[in-house]
Amino acid sequence: MRIDVAWTGHEVDDARASGRTAIVIDVLRATTMIATLLHGGAREVWPVVDVEEARRLATELGEGTLLAGERGGLPPEGFHLGNSPLEATHTDLHDRRIVLTTTNGTFSVNRCRKADAVVAASLVNAGSVAEWVQAQGPAELLIVCAGTRGAFSLDDALGAGLVVSRLTDLVPGVQLTDSAFAAHSVYDLHRDRLEEVIAGCKHGRTLTDLGLRDDIAFAARVDSIDVVPVLTSPERGRFARSNGA
Amino acid sequence: MRIDVAWTGHEVDDARASGRTAIVIDVLRATTMIATLLHGGAREVWPVVDVEEARRLATELGEGTLLAGERGGLPPEGFHLGNSPLEATHTDLHDRRIVLTTTNGTFSVNRCRKADAVVAASLVNAGSVAEWVQAQGPAELLIVCAGTRGAFSLDDALGAGLVVSRLTDLVPGVQLTDSAFAAHSVYDLHRDRLEEVIAGCKHGRTLTDLGLRDDIAFAARVDSIDVVPVLTSPERGRFARSNGA
Repeated sequence: MRIDVAWTGHEVDDARASGRTAIVIDVLRATTMIATLLHGGAREVWPVVDVEEARRLATELGEGTLLAGERGGLPPEGFHLGNSPLEATHTDLHDRRIVLTTTNGTFSVNRCRKADAVVAASLVNAGSVAEWVQAQGPAELLIVCAGTRGAFSLDDALGAGLVVSRLTDLVPGVQLTDSAFAAHSVYDLHRDRLEEVIAGCKHGRTLTDLGLRDDIAFAARVDSIDVVPVLTSPERGRFARSNGA
Repeated sequence: MRIDVAWTGHEVDDARASGRTAIVIDVLRATTMIATLLHGGAREVWPVVDVEEARRLATELGEGTLLAGERGGLPPEGFHLGNSPLEATHTDLHDRRIVLTTTNGTFSVNRCRKADAVVAASLVNAGSVAEWVQAQGPAELLIVCAGTRGAFSLDDALGAGLVVSRLTDLVPGVQLTDSAFAAHSVYDLHRDRLEEVIAGCKHGRTLTDLGLRDDIAFAARVDSIDVVPVLTSPERGRFARSNGA
């Protein structure tokens, strides 16, 4: 297996995604949220970019659909949840459809439309995702850090490095591109203080300033969630639990 | 001082370079070559993209100008040097003007045209460049990894991390962006085996396959060259030794 890492969704085009299994990572906070929602019992999570699109889609999906997301730190009018995974653990999600607004996460998922499969990973479910990848056994794996509006984001690089690390342990003869090697290195150096490093990075400081330090602790709990969110179809993207997890 | 790192020249636009001091890094091999040529006595090094442009410029600059570069591992017809820094140390360069063809290096230098100053750094002269930056004291430093045709290159990331490491030691209160922090981390983890790691990365394997393993050893000699190549003018780019080094 050969593993490549893209630092942002902007780096990914059809050619780079084509023929590969893609893992999208947005530690703070879309993919941590998606894993948490599915683990909490949600049937599917539909990632969309903006609030209006979310409202339209929720109407289309029908009664019982929950809207999740926030703008400026608060859920928009009519939304049932913000985008705090920690908050979501206190909500009854059983068998719910959820429409989640996310900018960088949705953008990155859309950039992978030519991939053979698209999975959402984060620190919380990296181990489960790595085992799923091992079982699938793709020749080419592309890990896509969502980044922040096209810029490198350290929390996502740590998530990518953790997945690379797990797969290197699980699968014999894994080959790493230069970026995959670098992601692995960054994770390896900081593996024993992930929460502290994430709290100090750009997005981590922003969340801390908003009073959301507990969400960072939640997102930094490696392997706390045993779920593999798989995109059910590239055209009409929604994540559901893989049958294997 | 705030330090940012761009993983490739493609990431840099006028807005990101503007008002900053820029350090371009192409360990294998343009900026190692530029430092070596100036250290060997060359008066100036003009980086250009292609062979035809190099020939035209050499004619314009007049007699005694040397042409350096290669295509497919060999110097083009009429060229005096390849682009091996090790080979250049065996050539009399005293007071010569040199036109050097380089793809990724020249591209990255051109992307920094709005920077306040542009310097060429590599592992061989990182310490001298860091001291020069300390003396200049810019508020904003942008380290630009040349990369390889728009892709992340591990050798350049290690060079960036070394410069970040040196400046963190020299300058109190340095602030790092997420990418600068990551570059520092990758360097820090591998600081005692740089040559081995570079030999294993994509460009390193290519050079090794071409029988140029000694060039990697040369490029990995940290602080072996005390020279700071500064671009003399953003419009008409050529590197010369800074007065300070």
